[in-house]
Amino acid sequence: MDNCIFCKIIDGSIPSTVVYEDADFKAIMDISPAAKGHVLVLPKKHCADLLSIDPDVASKALLVASKIANAQKKAFNCDGINLLQNSGEAAWQSVFHLHIHLIPRYKDDNVAVPWEHVTYADGEAEEYAARIREKL
Amino acid sequence: MDNCIFCKIIDGSIPSTVVYEDADFKAIMDISPAAKGHVLVLPKKHCADLLSIDPDVASKALLVASKIANAQKKAFNCDGINLLQNSGEAAWQSVFHLHIHLIPRYKDDNVAVPWEHVTYADGEAEEYAARIREKL
Repeated sequence: MDNCIFCKIIDGSIPSTVVYEDADFKAIMDISPAAKGHVLVLPKKHCADLLSIDPDVASKALLVASKIANAQKKAFNCDGINLLQNSGEAAWQSVFHLHIHLIPRYKDDNVAVPWEHVTYADGEAEEYAARIREKL
Repeated sequence: MDNCIFCKIIDGSIPSTVVYEDADFKAIMDISPAAKGHVLVLPKKHCADLLSIDPDVASKALLVASKIANAQKKAFNCDGINLLQNSGEAAWQSVFHLHIHLIPRYKDDNVAVPWEHVTYADGEAEEYAARIREKL
C-alpha cells in the first residue's frame, strides 16, 4: 500500500532488522522498544487492524507469534511475554498496518503500556535479533 | 483442568456473563475491566499461555477476537480496541489459562496497562454483554 511504512519495510525499500520471515509475515525489531528484544510481527498482506484483519492473516498470526515468543524466551531467558495489538489511534496505534507487539518481560521490570521506549546501543538491536533467530 | 478457574467458567460450574460461545471458545465479560465492555476470549481447550498455545486454538483465536472486537465497536461506538495477551506472571498474567483481553478504547480515555479496574453497577455488565451480543 502506498505510503505505508510497514509495507515499505516488508518490500525492503525501508531497512529493518529482521528476526523472521515466511511467505505471509515479516517480524522485525521494534525501533522504539518497551524492552530490549521487543519484536513486531507484520503480515505481508496490508490490513489496518484487528477490525479489518484478513482471515488468512488471522489464522496464521498467532502461530508465528508463538514461535517467536518461544524463541524470545530461549534467547533472553525472560520470565514472560506480552502480546499486544493496538487497533485505532485511541488505542495507541501509530502505524495503520496491523502489527503484533511481542515484549519480553522480567520479574520486577517496570514495563507499562504505553511505554517509555528504551534505547539500543549501536549494533545492539542486531545482536538481539541474532539471538532470537538462533532460537527459532 | 482441575483447579483452573477459567476451565470452571467454561464448563459452567463457575458463573460468568457470556458474550459469545462456539465449539472452541467462550468469551465473557472481564470482572476487573480496564474499561466497561472489556471482554476475555477463552479457548475451551486448556493451555497456559502463548508459549504453549495449542495450534488449533492459535489458528482460530484471532478470528473470534476480530468478530468480537467488531461487535464491541458497533455496540459502544468506541474509537479503538486493545488486544492483549499476557504470558507469565511477570507479564501480568494471573490466571494460567490462556486468555485474550479485548478492551474498548476512546479518544482521551486514561486506560493504561496494567489498569486500575473500573466497577460495574449491578446488572451493568450484563447490559454491556447484551449490547455486544446484539452486534455479533
